[in-house]
Amino acid sequence: MYPESIRNLIESFKRLPGIGEKTAERLTFSMINFSKEELTNFSNSIQELRDKIGKCQICGNICEGDVCNICENQNRNKKMIFVVEKEKDVFIFEKLGIFNGTYHVLGSLISPLEGINPEDINLSSLKRRILNEDVEEVILALKPSIEGETTMQYIKKILEDTSVKVSKIATGIPLGADMEYIDTLTLELALEERKNIS
Amino acid sequence: MYPESIRNLIESFKRLPGIGEKTAERLTFSMINFSKEELTNFSNSIQELRDKIGKCQICGNICEGDVCNICENQNRNKKMIFVVEKEKDVFIFEKLGIFNGTYHVLGSLISPLEGINPEDINLSSLKRRILNEDVEEVILALKPSIEGETTMQYIKKILEDTSVKVSKIATGIPLGADMEYIDTLTLELALEERKNIS
Repeated sequence: MYPESIRNLIESFKRLPGIGEKTAERLTFSMINFSKEELTNFSNSIQELRDKIGKCQICGNICEGDVCNICENQNRNKKMIFVVEKEKDVFIFEKLGIFNGTYHVLGSLISPLEGINPEDINLSSLKRRILNEDVEEVILALKPSIEGETTMQYIKKILEDTSVKVSKIATGIPLGADMEYIDTLTLELALEERKNIS
Repeated sequence: MYPESIRNLIESFKRLPGIGEKTAERLTFSMINFSKEELTNFSNSIQELRDKIGKCQICGNICEGDVCNICENQNRNKKMIFVVEKEKDVFIFEKLGIFNGTYHVLGSLISPLEGINPEDINLSSLKRRILNEDVEEVILALKPSIEGETTMQYIKKILEDTSVKVSKIATGIPLGADMEYIDTLTLELALEERKNIS
């Protein structure tokens, strides 16, 4: 019923996460009133993403070029590797500005239920980095879920024969949260991982 | 902090209604894992929108070409014009499949507060259509708001010197709605516009 070019754009929007038919229609129709220049910019930025953005050959983070600017930076501490699930996580931790090591982006978590096995995620290059570089500590910053725990256990296991220290970031009650709204598993973990007050 | 091509795409997404920084980031990062082909399709569909979609010279609806397929269709009743605010509204009423007349898309409603005056919306061509074509009835289907009412009153006024009949679609309680959640103005209007039960 819609003209074909409208239909095509609606379909493209529907590929994005959390965007269904209604939202895709609303976004498409809002663009009818964009200027030619705005539409050109939008289209060009998607082409740029396609043509310029690749994955860092060392850590798997997104970058323009072969190696990302964190891996390239000689001032970063190459002895520490911060393992995260997604590219976005790198920017979240970088914004904090408290970590000076390097990253390793897995791309996904191990999830047998979804058919994601260890060989499907960016793990072999992590092992290679640890064997070839002088790495002292691997910090796992994966989300505390079944998939996250499985992945952390797996990484721990494949690094057993190396001398590298493997740690994970703490789970517990987030600051300012109301106990009422915290799930039971988090409460259990927070209790289990309790610390002495010094 | 993000590579420039990522930043550009985030900015483009932020131009869309209801999309802020966080959502724009999430959408952009999800596209990193799109195939080259999907990215090309997305970019092309925006270019198609830019190059192919224009406004119908008669009714103001979107179309590929000079005149939309509703205005072009000889089987539509040219004696009735259904006046709507937005392009999208045409498709909403067309989906119902109960109206066989033609449309007229204003593009916006009169809103002195936002600086939108009668001359800023697609009104002069409506008057011209009524003077030149053999129109019998103009049905106003604008939303019941201050802007909608102002626009309807204005249209009624500029058509006073013609013989055309001007009607508007009914306001009232929507089917299945709980009285509790209906605003007071709608309740007042529903009471005012009550009908005898025959």
